[in-house]
Amino acid sequence: MNDKIKIIDKGGVTSAKGYKAASVTAGLKRSGKADMALIVSDSEAEFAGAFTSCVFKAAPVLVCLKKAKAGGKIKAVIVNSGNANACTGAKGVETAEKMCAITADALRISADLVLPASTGRIGVQMPMDKIANGIAKASASLKADGGAEAALAIMTTDTVPKEAAASFEVNGRRVTVGGMVKGAGMIAPKVKPAELHATMLGFITTDAAIDRKLLYKFIGATVEESFNKVNVDGDMSTNDTVILMANGASGVEIKDNTPEAALFAEALDYVTSSLAKSMVMDGEGVTKFVTLEITNAANKNDAILCARAISNSLLCKTAWFGGDPNWGRVMAAAGYSGAQFNPDKVEMYYDHKAVVINGMDAGTPEKELAEVMKNRSFTIKVNLNCGNASYTMWTNDISYEYVKINAEYYT
Amino acid sequence: MNDKIKIIDKGGVTSAKGYKAASVTAGLKRSGKADMALIVSDSEAEFAGAFTSCVFKAAPVLVCLKKAKAGGKIKAVIVNSGNANACTGAKGVETAEKMCAITADALRISADLVLPASTGRIGVQMPMDKIANGIAKASASLKADGGAEAALAIMTTDTVPKEAAASFEVNGRRVTVGGMVKGAGMIAPKVKPAELHATMLGFITTDAAIDRKLLYKFIGATVEESFNKVNVDGDMSTNDTVILMANGASGVEIKDNTPEAALFAEALDYVTSSLAKSMVMDGEGVTKFVTLEITNAANKNDAILCARAISNSLLCKTAWFGGDPNWGRVMAAAGYSGAQFNPDKVEMYYDHKAVVINGMDAGTPEKELAEVMKNRSFTIKVNLNCGNASYTMWTNDISYEYVKINAEYYT
Repeated sequence: MNDKIKIIDKGGVTSAKGYKAASVTAGLKRSGKADMALIVSDSEAEFAGAFTSCVFKAAPVLVCLKKAKAGGKIKAVIVNSGNANACTGAKGVETAEKMCAITADALRISADLVLPASTGRIGVQMPMDKIANGIAKASASLKADGGAEAALAIMTTDTVPKEAAASFEVNGRRVTVGGMVKGAGMIAPKVKPAELHATMLGFITTDAAIDRKLLYKFIGATVEESFNKVNVDGDMSTNDTVILMANGASGVEIKDNTPEAALFAEALDYVTSSLAKSMVMDGEGVTKFVTLEITNAANKNDAILCARAISNSLLCKTAWFGGDPNWGRVMAAAGYSGAQFNPDKVEMYYDHKAVVINGMDAGTPEKELAEVMKNRSFTIKVNLNCGNASYTMWTNDISYEYVKINAEYYT
Repeated sequence: MNDKIKIIDKGGVTSAKGYKAASVTAGLKRSGKADMALIVSDSEAEFAGAFTSCVFKAAPVLVCLKKAKAGGKIKAVIVNSGNANACTGAKGVETAEKMCAITADALRISADLVLPASTGRIGVQMPMDKIANGIAKASASLKADGGAEAALAIMTTDTVPKEAAASFEVNGRRVTVGGMVKGAGMIAPKVKPAELHATMLGFITTDAAIDRKLLYKFIGATVEESFNKVNVDGDMSTNDTVILMANGASGVEIKDNTPEAALFAEALDYVTSSLAKSMVMDGEGVTKFVTLEITNAANKNDAILCARAISNSLLCKTAWFGGDPNWGRVMAAAGYSGAQFNPDKVEMYYDHKAVVINGMDAGTPEKELAEVMKNRSFTIKVNLNCGNASYTMWTNDISYEYVKINAEYYT
C-alpha cells in the first residue's frame, strides 16, 4: 500500500469528520443485545449504493434503490438487525419508509435525507412500536465516537464487530474513509459490475467531497475488489446493501483522474477489503480462511467460474475443515465449473507446496500438505495454464458449528 | 405405473436372463470389505453409456467413452471401489485398459468386450497386483444370483446397497430390466441432454434385444427423469458412469415407437428412479428427503435454475436438518437463482400447507409447518406463477454427520 495512507487502528464509521453514530437495544433480538444503529452526517452528504441482485429485494433495499434513483443527498442511515423486512409486501415497504420518516422527525430533517437498512429473519413484519422507540433512543444518544458501538448493533450471527478506517493528507488537510460491516452467513458473490452480491450490510463514510458520478465509480470498483470476492456459504441474501457517504467535511474535494483520486481509491480498497476479509474470518463456524487464486485461465469468466465452483463445493469445504489435503475434490470442482481448460496441464499449490503438476499428483508427501492446512489461513493456487486471466476469492471451511448455527437459527 | 409391469422384490443386475455377477475383496478398501464387482453377460450385449461432464474425466470413463465411440458390443463390466483412477494421467488410462485385458484373459474373451468403472479416492495410482488378484477371484466366482453381492462391493460411503428390477411380458415371453447403483456423496446434477451429471456408478441390465440407437434414446430419456434430478451435495464427480446392457436373452426385440418400447421405457424409468431416490435417501448423513417441485415457471431452464439453487443452498439444507420452517431461505435461493419471475406472485407449500401467498407469509402457524418437517420425507412446492414450465428435483438436508463423513474421509 502507498505509504501516504495511514491505517487508523480501531477506526470505523465515525473516524471521518462530521459523522456521529448511536447504538441502542430496541428489543428486536431475542438475546436482548443492541439491535439498532443510527449513522448521521452533520451536513448533507453525497451517497452511492450497491445492492443485492436477488429477485426478492427486501423492503429497505427497494426504498434505498428508489432514493438512489431520485438522486438527492442524505444525512442519515437507520439500521436494524433481528428482522430483515423481506418478503413483507407493500406493508413492508410502508414500514421501511416509516422508519425513515420517524428518524427524520427525531432529527428534524426531511425524510428524503434518510436511508433504511435491515437484516435478520425473512418474512416477518416489523414491530413498529419497538422500531419507533429504538429510533427515539438512538437519535438522543448520537456520539462523535459512536462507530464502535454501532458496529456491535448491526451484528446478527457475527461473533465480532467489523470495522476499518484509513486516511491520507492532501495539501495539509487529512481525508479519512472508514466503515463497518455485518455478515457471517448468507454470504456469496455473483459477480456483475456495479451490483453488490456478497450478503451483508456495509456502511462506509468519508469526509472527502466527491460528486455522485465519481462516487459510483469508486463504489463499483471497490466492491469488485472486496465484497464480491467473498464466498462464505454460497447463499445470496435479499438484503445486501453497501452505502458510501461523502460529506466533504475535510475540505478536500476529490476529482477523477487525479493523484488524490488514486489515493482515495487505495484507502477505500483497504477499508472494504479489510472488512470483506474479516467477514470471511468471522463466517459462521469458520475455522479456516482460504485464499483461492485461479491463474492463467482462458478468460476472466472462466477464472471466476472456477473460483466460485471450488468455493461453493461442500466436499472441498469439509476437507479443509478436516485438514485433509484431498486435492481431488478441488480438481473435480474446477472440472465441473464450466471453465474450459486442458486437464493434463493443470497445476495446483497449497501455499508454496506443489500439489498437482500436469494434472497429476506432484509427489509432495501428504504430510507436508497437511502441515499447510493446519494453518488458520492458507492459499490454494490453481494454474489452468491456458491463458492470461486470473481471479482471487476469499472463502472458508464448513464445520459442525456452521450446521449447528443454521439448523438452530430460530428455534 | 402400467399394471403390466411387475416390480421384482430384491431384484438387481442379475434379475434379467443371461447375466452373472461376482463380488470379491481385493484389498483396495481400508475396511477390508468387498471392493470389486464383475458383471458378465452370457452372450455379447449391445450397450449405451452416460458419463460425467466434468473436464477431469477419470481414466475408466475415458476408456468407456472410447469403446462407446468405437461402437462394438460388450460382455463384461469390471468395477472397483476404493480408488477412482482419476487425475492419474496416461498411466491411469493404461491401468484402466489393463483391468479390461486381465478380465478378458480370465473370461477368455477379447479385451474389447470389457468396460471398466472405478470409484474412490482421486489422484492415486491403482495397485495393479491387488486388482489382478481381485479379477482372478471374481471371474472364478460368478453366480447367476450374484447381483446383491455385487451391489455391496461397489459401495463407498453408502450405508445400504441399492438395487431395483422390474419385468413385463411380450407375447408370453418375460422381459426383465434390473440395476444397481452406488453413490452417497459427490452427487449433483447439471442437466444437459444425453449426458450424465449425478455423481454415481450405475449398471442396468436387460434381456431384451435393443439396437444401439434405441438404447441411447432410452438411456438419455431415463437419466433425465432419474439420476439428473438428484442433488445431494452439489458436487459432480470425475467418475460418473451409467451403463445399460441389452443381451437379448429373453428372445424379445424392442423396436422404437411400439407398445413394447413404451412398456420398456416405463420399466426402465421405474428402475432408474428407484435407484436415484435411494441414492438421496442414503446420501451421506441424510435425515430428510425433500422433493422440490417448481411449477409455473416462465420456461424449463428457469424451473431448473430455481430447483438447483434451492437444492444447493446450505442455508435451506441446514434449516431442513433442524426442522426449521424458515421459508425465507427458500425464497432467497429462488430469488438469486437467475430465474425470472414476479416476487409478489410467488406461492409456496410444504406438502399441502400454504407457506407463502403473493410473496408473503400465508399465515399458516409455524407449528403446523414444523410438523410437516418432522417427516423423513416432504415436498416443497414453489409456484412461480408466471408460465407453464415445471421441474422436480430430489434433494436432502445437510447434517453434522455429513460434515463428519467428509472431513474424515481419508484420515
